Amino acid sequence: MYRSHHCGQLRSKNIGERVVLSGWMATKRDFGGMTFIDLRDRYGITQLIFNMETDEALCLAARQLHREDVIQIHGDVRERSNKNPDIPTGDVEVVVSEINVLSRSKLPPFTIENDTDGGDELRMKYRYLDLRRPVLQEQIQFRSKLTLAIRKYMDQQQFLEIETPVLIKSTPEGARDFVVPSRLNPGQFYALPQSPQTFKQLFMVAGMDRYFQIVKCFRDEDLRADRQPEFTQVDCEMAFVHQEDVLQTFEGLTRFVFREMLSAELPEFQRITYDDAIRLYGSDKPDTRFDMQIIDFTDPVKGHGFKVFDQAEFIGGLLLEGKADEYSNKNMKEITTWVQRPQVGAKGLVYAQWKNDDTIKSSVGKFYPDDVIKSWFEAAGGQKGDILFLMSGEDALTRTQIGTLRLELGRRHELISPTAFKPLWVVDFPLLEWDEETQRFYAMHHPFTAPKTEDIEKMNSDDRKVLESIRADAYDLVINGAEIGGGSIRIYDRALQEKNFALLQFTPEEAESQFGFLMSAFEYGAPPHGGIAFGLDRLCAVMKGKTSIRDFIAFPKNNMGRDIMIDAPAKIDEEQLKDLSLRVVKKS
Amino acid sequence: MYRSHHCGQLRSKNIGERVVLSGWMATKRDFGGMTFIDLRDRYGITQLIFNMETDEALCLAARQLHREDVIQIHGDVRERSNKNPDIPTGDVEVVVSEINVLSRSKLPPFTIENDTDGGDELRMKYRYLDLRRPVLQEQIQFRSKLTLAIRKYMDQQQFLEIETPVLIKSTPEGARDFVVPSRLNPGQFYALPQSPQTFKQLFMVAGMDRYFQIVKCFRDEDLRADRQPEFTQVDCEMAFVHQEDVLQTFEGLTRFVFREMLSAELPEFQRITYDDAIRLYGSDKPDTRFDMQIIDFTDPVKGHGFKVFDQAEFIGGLLLEGKADEYSNKNMKEITTWVQRPQVGAKGLVYAQWKNDDTIKSSVGKFYPDDVIKSWFEAAGGQKGDILFLMSGEDALTRTQIGTLRLELGRRHELISPTAFKPLWVVDFPLLEWDEETQRFYAMHHPFTAPKTEDIEKMNSDDRKVLESIRADAYDLVINGAEIGGGSIRIYDRALQEKNFALLQFTPEEAESQFGFLMSAFEYGAPPHGGIAFGLDRLCAVMKGKTSIRDFIAFPKNNMGRDIMIDAPAKIDEEQLKDLSLRVVKKS
Repeated sequence: MYRSHHCGQLRSKNIGERVVLSGWMATKRDFGGMTFIDLRDRYGITQLIFNMETDEALCLAARQLHREDVIQIHGDVRERSNKNPDIPTGDVEVVVSEINVLSRSKLPPFTIENDTDGGDELRMKYRYLDLRRPVLQEQIQFRSKLTLAIRKYMDQQQFLEIETPVLIKSTPEGARDFVVPSRLNPGQFYALPQSPQTFKQLFMVAGMDRYFQIVKCFRDEDLRADRQPEFTQVDCEMAFVHQEDVLQTFEGLTRFVFREMLSAELPEFQRITYDDAIRLYGSDKPDTRFDMQIIDFTDPVKGHGFKVFDQAEFIGGLLLEGKADEYSNKNMKEITTWVQRPQVGAKGLVYAQWKNDDTIKSSVGKFYPDDVIKSWFEAAGGQKGDILFLMSGEDALTRTQIGTLRLELGRRHELISPTAFKPLWVVDFPLLEWDEETQRFYAMHHPFTAPKTEDIEKMNSDDRKVLESIRADAYDLVINGAEIGGGSIRIYDRALQEKNFALLQFTPEEAESQFGFLMSAFEYGAPPHGGIAFGLDRLCAVMKGKTSIRDFIAFPKNNMGRDIMIDAPAKIDEEQLKDLSLRVVKKS
Repeated sequence: MYRSHHCGQLRSKNIGERVVLSGWMATKRDFGGMTFIDLRDRYGITQLIFNMETDEALCLAARQLHREDVIQIHGDVRERSNKNPDIPTGDVEVVVSEINVLSRSKLPPFTIENDTDGGDELRMKYRYLDLRRPVLQEQIQFRSKLTLAIRKYMDQQQFLEIETPVLIKSTPEGARDFVVPSRLNPGQFYALPQSPQTFKQLFMVAGMDRYFQIVKCFRDEDLRADRQPEFTQVDCEMAFVHQEDVLQTFEGLTRFVFREMLSAELPEFQRITYDDAIRLYGSDKPDTRFDMQIIDFTDPVKGHGFKVFDQAEFIGGLLLEGKADEYSNKNMKEITTWVQRPQVGAKGLVYAQWKNDDTIKSSVGKFYPDDVIKSWFEAAGGQKGDILFLMSGEDALTRTQIGTLRLELGRRHELISPTAFKPLWVVDFPLLEWDEETQRFYAMHHPFTAPKTEDIEKMNSDDRKVLESIRADAYDLVINGAEIGGGSIRIYDRALQEKNFALLQFTPEEAESQFGFLMSAFEYGAPPHGGIAFGLDRLCAVMKGKTSIRDFIAFPKNNMGRDIMIDAPAKIDEEQLKDLSLRVVKKS
């Protein structure tokens, strides 16, 4: 037996007991004739004590130990004279009578503490040491407990967890698939699922009624920061539901896990249409922890000879309250430069300050008299002491840029409570999204999303504007400006599904060869159904107030999709390639 | 709202309520002026009733419905005159006032009942209809509930569920890997994990203490019946444990899930060494639901001029009690032919019958007098009325063949209680397994398995017999003759791991390039650790008394690794291949 207790377990009631503990040597202090060791495991820390006077050999052995050595000790629990109220075992210590060194540690390549001196690459390479840091232990445990809480709720709601295959079929729609060559079927490939979408719909056709799965999904994308080629979804589907049933069920799930994990009671789940989200926040995932909305200045500011505005499709503004006197010329120049960064991409920024001394200062002061500018403030609900920022240009692009500035102002001026959670349903997404480059429609959510019943007729139009105006029963759950989940009510009628594929430029043959099994399933009694998928990694990050998902993943990959620790991907044997009927060719 | 209740919900207390139900039309009966419909969903069946006299139009509409049509009805719950005690809703029926047809069904390609007329291929193609059959609904639900029960126990035991990566690195050891070409790293490949072995060991080094995961694993094998290229493991690892700790913990898990799922109290978990299992049962996964053991006749039968026995390395027998008079010459010929089938591969079968009239009948009667044969029976604990079957040849092979005959005798003579569960730990597996073909050792379990402490010294030998005699702390959990799980205590010392790799014919460079990260981890304070992995599909099958795992998997693949429904694997676009720097070549 390696231990009688773990390192977070001993309390006053154990005083006088003989115990065996095992763990890592976290810290060591020599103090007079005594040596103190903090022995650490996942559960906590216990103080060990050695005495030169009573057992010199043992105390000397303890002094030989290095950080991260793994030891087993035998000893007696006694009351601690110098109690430590910060840790649960702080009332006791263990007087050691025997040490067994189980495993020695070399000097770790970085310090194993929350504030480590290790850089990203080094910590990825020694991820097993990085994972010993308390903050990562905490986050990995959080994720484990969160999945338990999710499963508890889903079971209460009669969802079955059913596994779907990982080796499936490649489809051209959506992101790029990872593929897996089949040895038994030479020249043919499986694909790894981007989501179990068609399978979960088939579960509904199969009468499973309520399905969920916490499941790995895969996307072979050019990796941006904080994207992983493999990620985990909480994937859900329900039969005999309208959109409202889905929203209620998953509002319930969200409330449940925030309560179980954080003892947090979420406020009302507000709802906003996609159109309003874009119009008011310049984003389909608005951060509603602060109120600032985009104000439409297109009409008010035109016709004063300022060409940039006069020629703009859209002019929008943000009202920053109470900061007029804080912004110097230098500040204004700096924030103008900020919006001109490639990541934001604005051409420029117009400002107007209504200073507390009642003067107006504006970058467009020569075109607009003070009283006109004051009328802008009034229209925006502003007053003396406020600033207006204005941007102009093509409608959609400008709103996005203003939305980005809005978030930056929120951060800079600490308008966002760090402890608030603001859940929001974004609803009524468009069914189709026009792509200028390829001059065709793509599915905004995915090709299985149902249009709103009242918009089905519009699918017969060949007018692009009409088609763009089709709304879908599609919805996203956004919390604090992060997209946590998204889903839709699905098509369950073969003819409607064929119609939708046609709008998405599938030939009937392509539709049949790729999704024939699904359309065929719709002919054998398919119930109305819909669902949602949550990004588990993102949900963890939002709940714990982190911006990166990486530290909720035990072994993440870097931005080139590499696992630095195991050095993957890697070359494989010629023999393996031959078995797979494959040859590697140089890129032309 | 599609429904106020599901189809398994209504009871006497609902009589008089107005309800909305949705589901599939399972059966329809016209009876006098009435029509009865069984409406089905996952939760049950509710009887609907229509009356030609009170609403002719509605009743006619009902009579138009086809099997598997999806409908929504409004109606009133009333007491049923002709109660059906076999179903929970059997006390009530619903008088329908409105039908909405949600989705029509064509005639299904096979009957959707437990005893279906659909063949394997057809049911695989229409798996979404196959899954509507009650027996499959039941098995898929069982699996879902079983995973919940497993997670409940593991949480109680402080195991964390942590996900490991699916895109890892190919290693030549063990079965063939599925590989995934990396587009961002041309010419390089990920591999899909055969198990998360190294990652779970790294979790122990990382101080996670207790890890588990219900996880998909992958093996690119030539598929035998009832093997799947992707399968699910309950994968577990614990730090600071000896073998006994692991066995206790997972005996606990097994008892827990049998109790929760089947209300079954398992008998004592017997233990047998690998050597004894082979010696007594000719199998490393003996079915101990019946006692019949292999009896060693090597010495007693030699020297009577029967050349086959005189030249054999080993002669073993089975005692079949009380059946001597049942076996005719024809029966004996039949069972002899049976053991000569290629699947068993025996050269022949010797028998001796001690008939109830005290005569002896034996295929080797001319070499052995009756009293000698009677002495065999006595040595075997047999008596008048029994049969002895004897087989001879090379030791290991013969024991395996006798073991196969043993199982067949158990089946034929119904020696196995169909409701019994007999758990058994097989322990003390050899560390190494000699392969005649390649003239080298392979790891019996895997290369990370620890030899027993007292056998470590033997690893320095270059005598094959000495090396073969090394025992490992490796164990299998066998229930009713099926291997449910297997595991081992692991090496956690770099030098010992290097030694083991060397015995397995890894060059130091190969060991370093493939498993350097793990050996490096052992240098930074690795705790002693060990674990186990359970086959979830197999566990389901054994618990439900089934021999095939396939119907516990929602979308299984056939023996060529194909998903017939979605038609995968399949060819991919030239463009995709080019992006991956690959070309398909003809097999030479």
